[in-house]
Amino acid sequence: MKAVVWTGINTVEIQEVPIPKPGQQQVLIQVKGAGLCSTDLHIMAGHLELAKPPHILGHEIAGIIVETGAGVDPALVGQRVVADTIVSCGTCEFCRRGQYEFCLHGGEVGYPPYNGGYAEYVVVPAVGIHRLPEEISFEEGAIIESIICPAGSLFKHGVVMGETVFIQGSGVAGLAYLQVAKACGAGKVIVSASGVRKAKARELGADVVIDARSEDVYARVLEETKGYGADLSIEAAGAVASIDLAVRCVRSGGRVILYGIPSKEDRVSFPVLDMIVRQLQIFGACSNPFVWEPLIELVRQGRVNVASLVTHRFPIERFQEAVTTASLRKDGAIKCVITF
Amino acid sequence: MKAVVWTGINTVEIQEVPIPKPGQQQVLIQVKGAGLCSTDLHIMAGHLELAKPPHILGHEIAGIIVETGAGVDPALVGQRVVADTIVSCGTCEFCRRGQYEFCLHGGEVGYPPYNGGYAEYVVVPAVGIHRLPEEISFEEGAIIESIICPAGSLFKHGVVMGETVFIQGSGVAGLAYLQVAKACGAGKVIVSASGVRKAKARELGADVVIDARSEDVYARVLEETKGYGADLSIEAAGAVASIDLAVRCVRSGGRVILYGIPSKEDRVSFPVLDMIVRQLQIFGACSNPFVWEPLIELVRQGRVNVASLVTHRFPIERFQEAVTTASLRKDGAIKCVITF
Amino acid sequence: MKAVVWTGINTVEIQEVPIPKPGQQQVLIQVKGAGLCSTDLHIMAGHLELAKPPHILGHEIAGIIVETGAGVDPALVGQRVVADTIVSCGTCEFCRRGQYEFCLHGGEVGYPPYNGGYAEYVVVPAVGIHRLPEEISFEEGAIIESIICPAGSLFKHGVVMGETVFIQGSGVAGLAYLQVAKACGAGKVIVSASGVRKAKARELGADVVIDARSEDVYARVLEETKGYGADLSIEAAGAVASIDLAVRCVRSGGRVILYGIPSKEDRVSFPVLDMIVRQLQIFGACSNPFVWEPLIELVRQGRVNVASLVTHRFPIERFQEAVTTASLRKDGAIKCVITF
Amino acid sequence: MKAVVWTGINTVEIQEVPIPKPGQQQVLIQVKGAGLCSTDLHIMAGHLELAKPPHILGHEIAGIIVETGAGVDPALVGQRVVADTIVSCGTCEFCRRGQYEFCLHGGEVGYPPYNGGYAEYVVVPAVGIHRLPEEISFEEGAIIESIICPAGSLFKHGVVMGETVFIQGSGVAGLAYLQVAKACGAGKVIVSASGVRKAKARELGADVVIDARSEDVYARVLEETKGYGADLSIEAAGAVASIDLAVRCVRSGGRVILYGIPSKEDRVSFPVLDMIVRQLQIFGACSNPFVWEPLIELVRQGRVNVASLVTHRFPIERFQEAVTTASLRKDGAIKCVITF
Ligand SMILES: [Zn+2]
Ligand SMILES: [Zn+2]
Ligand SMILES: [Zn+2]
Ligand SMILES: [Zn+2]
Ligand SMILES: [Zn+2]
Ligand SMILES: [Zn+2]
Ligand SMILES: [Zn+2]
Ligand SMILES: [Zn+2]
Ligand SMILES: [Zn+2]
Ligand SMILES: [Zn+2]
Repeated sequence: MKAVVWTGINTVEIQEVPIPKPGQQQVLIQVKGAGLCSTDLHIMAGHLELAKPPHILGHEIAGIIVETGAGVDPALVGQRVVADTIVSCGTCEFCRRGQYEFCLHGGEVGYPPYNGGYAEYVVVPAVGIHRLPEEISFEEGAIIESIICPAGSLFKHGVVMGETVFIQGSGVAGLAYLQVAKACGAGKVIVSASGVRKAKARELGADVVIDARSEDVYARVLEETKGYGADLSIEAAGAVASIDLAVRCVRSGGRVILYGIPSKEDRVSFPVLDMIVRQLQIFGACSNPFVWEPLIELVRQGRVNVASLVTHRFPIERFQEAVTTASLRKDGAIKCVITF
Repeated sequence: MKAVVWTGINTVEIQEVPIPKPGQQQVLIQVKGAGLCSTDLHIMAGHLELAKPPHILGHEIAGIIVETGAGVDPALVGQRVVADTIVSCGTCEFCRRGQYEFCLHGGEVGYPPYNGGYAEYVVVPAVGIHRLPEEISFEEGAIIESIICPAGSLFKHGVVMGETVFIQGSGVAGLAYLQVAKACGAGKVIVSASGVRKAKARELGADVVIDARSEDVYARVLEETKGYGADLSIEAAGAVASIDLAVRCVRSGGRVILYGIPSKEDRVSFPVLDMIVRQLQIFGACSNPFVWEPLIELVRQGRVNVASLVTHRFPIERFQEAVTTASLRKDGAIKCVITF
Repeated sequence: MKAVVWTGINTVEIQEVPIPKPGQQQVLIQVKGAGLCSTDLHIMAGHLELAKPPHILGHEIAGIIVETGAGVDPALVGQRVVADTIVSCGTCEFCRRGQYEFCLHGGEVGYPPYNGGYAEYVVVPAVGIHRLPEEISFEEGAIIESIICPAGSLFKHGVVMGETVFIQGSGVAGLAYLQVAKACGAGKVIVSASGVRKAKARELGADVVIDARSEDVYARVLEETKGYGADLSIEAAGAVASIDLAVRCVRSGGRVILYGIPSKEDRVSFPVLDMIVRQLQIFGACSNPFVWEPLIELVRQGRVNVASLVTHRFPIERFQEAVTTASLRKDGAIKCVITF
Repeated sequence: MKAVVWTGINTVEIQEVPIPKPGQQQVLIQVKGAGLCSTDLHIMAGHLELAKPPHILGHEIAGIIVETGAGVDPALVGQRVVADTIVSCGTCEFCRRGQYEFCLHGGEVGYPPYNGGYAEYVVVPAVGIHRLPEEISFEEGAIIESIICPAGSLFKHGVVMGETVFIQGSGVAGLAYLQVAKACGAGKVIVSASGVRKAKARELGADVVIDARSEDVYARVLEETKGYGADLSIEAAGAVASIDLAVRCVRSGGRVILYGIPSKEDRVSFPVLDMIVRQLQIFGACSNPFVWEPLIELVRQGRVNVASLVTHRFPIERFQEAVTTASLRKDGAIKCVITF
């Protein structure tokens, strides 16, 4: 099969490699769409050490089951699916609580030792397979994994009917937070965005769009919330300044979801006195294995518009071009998908 | 002022009575719209003893504040408002917990000793006033009170992202449950309705509509839920048989909301062994003073369509005609509003 | 090995049968203590059809792992354990949600087709094994399963700090509810009991003990709650009258846990109007696989006194005598344990 | 009446001042016990600007109602009470939600413009009065306010049955967290303390006491939690290093309560990448008006031992000596109470 092999910093090669075999409790998927994740861009650029070359990356996967391993129902062959790429042990203290995302012995398809989805075929754990309804195309399915964390954190912490939500960031995550919050009962949603993405935020349902660069964001949020601050403040921009804003812009007793990771800083200073006196609630947000089915249903019904986030498509042969487009956000790129 | 005075069984008179004065912590509202509540129909017909004639009924009220009592900001005069008609003492154990709806010494505007909104003016507690945004008409505002209980129970118990909801009843309450559940993240919503209201349920977003009279409702719900039952089962039809169905159609561990009150039975038999073994959660649903603002916002944004529920309008002079229309559900009547 | 084989109505035989072999993901336990469950008494008396003779019953098990099946860490041999006897498929919709107690294809060790713990050895699923700390004896461990449901329902629905709890029933379940509620922050706990168990309830921490036979229970509960009713009302007596009392004695907006199953009625009538207007919350309570570890810790620390519930011990040879003692509640019997 | 008037940095005078009059919705309390709060020590030392001299400080108050203002039931005269000193407007967005602790126009008795409880009489809002049962002495009652925040945060966020709790700090707050957590169902409680307070922590129920100065606290917590970290991590020491430890010592997905305020830093750096990847939940903790009644009940039953925290008593005439004792923690001082 053809596979994109990351061979060194900023270098990939399309190689012919053997089709893998599914083992116990695994399935083989013929990949039909693979989302290009910015984490992988960082890895390929040598910024992160999650993987070392050579490796087949890719953890946003939609396709068709073509073979089942031992212990898996063979009737699944032919099913359209998306794949939760988390690998978990099933027996540690976290797995026993159903918190597979924290598995002590876990990993992820797409990172060593598991080859990923930038290839014609990929092996994934059967437990992570979710049926992709006919109404959802493979390219849409391919990027569902990229919004699992935003959707998962709202699934976990809930959206209170009518509450005011302030979202920073208008990339895939920010636009997903916007749509999922709206679909789950948020009242006024205020998005701080910049450039062409402001229009996208408006198009996807933002009630108020603040220009992150030219406006006094804090003042605007307070003005739009009668001076109280937002009920729920979501940080999906991944910058020190926006983390600080996220905390300042929430009302007393309100909730802050931190999702964006600053690229250079491991630590960020927080106004601890303010957090204590105003009894803020701050939640780190990452993956959630239980949100796949609910999210797929919202996508199927068109209430979360995933298609609008897919701005570019590239066949596997033009993988390098996809990387360039995504890295430079060329032509208003939000999300690039590798198609097969 | 003109007022509809209920003078005896099935008898009302339009009388000229003095405009009331707002007292301490009260406001005087010029009524612009008053929803006709089926509870009042029952009272006027002599089926319920909540009030004795003569009395001015009416507790679904939208209008304009024209005078403020002591302790109320006079700047409120001129404001468009809807009124939470609950009267509470503020000091009992329930009021101290913020559960005003259970106040031991409470009452309701529209029931003795408080005159209601089937009149040109009405006095209500200032604490229950909520601003009615310009985007919402008075006739829409007038019936918001009638969906506070459905919305309030979903506010209280939450809607889980993507969950399957089964609703029985397609009157105002059922159609409100449908819309609010959808607006708050429900996945597939299955409505059991009958007659012309099936189309209404479809129009307002039901994914599946079951004919309550001709179909095997239980079988259909199980079929639509892969045999598991609904995650959330809502009873808004108010019949012994539908209460039973509500419990049977919910999945193990699922939630049942009981809202509809059977007209003749105070007690209904429940399958207690099934409730225990399947660990069902059953919630009685009634008013909720905290859901007004969230609901008004959803209505303002058009995500809960209240206008579609108002099928008939009558000036106060034709009040008796409104009663007849509502009682007999003439011309597909869902909700009648008295306009001024 | 010696095993108690139930051979017909009210008949058991001590037979010599082969020691079973643990299969995939199973372990073999040398039984050191087996609690005598009243459900089994009902089965042996021919009142329930959960099992047909001949069968080895028994699902309250403490012992030592003596052999491990495939896929289980052999280092577990020698470990003192208690066993969650639930058997689940791991792949149905419920198992995927972590709700193993509702598994569509599940069963229970002690009921066909699985032999139980009234024997010198028993095979159980490895996933249900929980380490029994040295501080807890085998006879205490043996009856932990019998209070998993009460503890599990409080684990699931929480105990609010300081809340007033009303408990009906003073058998093993009622006395467990009492202790666990106290250990988890309940304020005043009111127990309705009868006979010698009133003293037991007092000894185990009840703040108020009402004589279920001679007193006006409803009046007493209201008197003890300033007329509001209990915050949480727990029914562990299993009678139609006490279910009715449970609902009447809870405050508006309060919670009712139903655990006791009436012996003859499948259906019980509920005051549905009252449930709706007072917005009651009613929860069926049964098993909970996640409460084992928390409960074991409370028992280990002596905050839930399990030893005080074990009133009688019988070697396996005197099994019939145990049955008689438990059935007739001879000598103040609360819980009988078969020892080895 | 005699009152302690703070007249300047580190200077107080016992002055004779007029007894105040209770106004609308207020009561006059004859003070019987007043806890000495460390916040007041900081104010008197000139470290905080919450108040300017001259002022009568003191917000931990127990006493007897001797006069009622307008709108308050005169029958309250003679009642033993403790006082929630929060003053709230009742009409702002927060007050309407029942979040009086965040009132935009609120204040606190003991801080300008309200005189406090270091005096023979004090006026407080009637709404904050809670009956002090006979079983609780005035000196115990006097310091209940000082543990409202710890108890309130556990009331708000719950204690999960059997969970492992790690507490830093062994002052009044830390020892209150320890006791309330235990009383509400915590499993293993690990306290990091120092000096003589280690014994106090053990005496009050800590399962593990770590010496904060000589041991590797992080390593010990992980060792005591099988390498997973605590389920709930509580910071009541108020230091930058302990805030950092609080976050590091909690398990993935776990909860951190921040209560202690570092004396010099307004901002503290947090490991934001870790918070996100491990999906930590961080809660600022401060007052909670709804926990008074539940806490009083736990104290009344002796399950939270408040008496053990009162180490010193001083008549009002020796107020300065109380200040010195508390400031220097002389003679193992934990809490000093002014008696009358
Ligand atoms: Zn990714
Ligand atoms: Zn990078
Ligand atoms: Zn694991
Ligand atoms: Zn009505
Ligand atoms: Zn009240
Ligand atoms: Zn049993
Ligand atoms: Zn299953
Ligand atoms: Zn203080
Ligand atoms: Zn200081
Ligand atoms: Zn306020």
